[in-house]
Amino acid sequence: MSAANMYLWWGSGSGPCWKPMIVLAEKGLWKDCPNKLVQFSQKEHKGPDVMKLNPRGQVPTFKDGDLVINESAAICSYLDETFGTDKPLIPKSQPARAKCLQRMYESDNLQSKVMLPLIYYKMRTKKEDWDNELLAKNAAEAKEELKHWEGYLNENKFVAGNEFTMADIFVFVFIAMCFRQGAKLEEFPKIRKFYNELMERPAIKETMPPHWADSPSPNQMEGLL
Amino acid sequence: MSAANMYLWWGSGSGPCWKPMIVLAEKGLWKDCPNKLVQFSQKEHKGPDVMKLNPRGQVPTFKDGDLVINESAAICSYLDETFGTDKPLIPKSQPARAKCLQRMYESDNLQSKVMLPLIYYKMRTKKEDWDNELLAKNAAEAKEELKHWEGYLNENKFVAGNEFTMADIFVFVFIAMCFRQGAKLEEFPKIRKFYNELMERPAIKETMPPHWADSPSPNQMEGLL
Repeated sequence: MSAANMYLWWGSGSGPCWKPMIVLAEKGLWKDCPNKLVQFSQKEHKGPDVMKLNPRGQVPTFKDGDLVINESAAICSYLDETFGTDKPLIPKSQPARAKCLQRMYESDNLQSKVMLPLIYYKMRTKKEDWDNELLAKNAAEAKEELKHWEGYLNENKFVAGNEFTMADIFVFVFIAMCFRQGAKLEEFPKIRKFYNELMERPAIKETMPPHWADSPSPNQMEGLL
Repeated sequence: MSAANMYLWWGSGSGPCWKPMIVLAEKGLWKDCPNKLVQFSQKEHKGPDVMKLNPRGQVPTFKDGDLVINESAAICSYLDETFGTDKPLIPKSQPARAKCLQRMYESDNLQSKVMLPLIYYKMRTKKEDWDNELLAKNAAEAKEELKHWEGYLNENKFVAGNEFTMADIFVFVFIAMCFRQGAKLEEFPKIRKFYNELMERPAIKETMPPHWADSPSPNQMEGLL
């Protein structure tokens, strides 16, 4: 098992980047994986090294030898199936496998129903134009989405069962973003517990977005969730 | 190989529903799969039979015996790994496997950059409020996205190589929607060829959205793409 031939371009605080970083750390490969922390503010994700491998100019961009993979979920699956296969993050057997894949894909709802209508709305709209009524409506809909996940965690310790899986990584990056952005999630005790427990996980500590430690949060979810 | 224990709830013209239907047909299972054509206009996707298994009230909703799977991509993976495994739609070996998964996930860009800013924009905006300047800008961006796929099909017969894979199914349902909606895609001869050839594929003929045959298209992409 070696990371010597790999290379990962990533950005700090990007959920799609954080996913394969956690997988690499779970497999004991992150500390040896050659990588570049791309500065979004300098538009380094549109730089020639990234664009050559990923014409959309997005991170994560990843290669292992000659094999180039860009989509974060495809990178995660590749890493899981190639390294540490005795302890897979996506279970090999049914029905655990179907449940894990279901929750991995389902986590896209956290992007479309929680992140986009709250954080991205605020990022893309001038502060003086923020529509507080719309934001309150979006927050109510985001809570409807979060109720599904609270329910899954009420049934099981993790989102796809009682074992930690890839689905937990996919969900965690969104939940961590909510807390970073000042969400309290007081109505969601199981999600809070899930977050607190995963924050203690070595692979997650090792890969925490570096700028979170030394720059204040914009707290864009404060008072909303 | 049997479909007797399965059940699929689906809607006509829904891309997410069409994907697992094509997979079932490719595996020779569609004609024997118990199923219900859900009428969106009657809100049957919010009916008790669906809601019991899929609390978000969305289709496809699928079960095989006691195993419930809702997300279309998770259903497709399950079917591929369970039935007709001698002819998998997602290749088993690298690098073909990584390439196929990459393109499957990458097809989400066709939803976010081609479908949403054109068809969904028109569906969700009153006709008298359509902003033609915005639509022209969105169409130009959609063409930038389509250029990536034209390039892949310039390199290979199919989107993930020279063999037909799951990635082709994921891409085809979007491309077919473009043509149904009056797009000409004149600048994209390889995408047109891909579409024309796949339209002759038995599994695709067998599962074509039934209402496409007997109701006129709203042609919402006409003059845009």
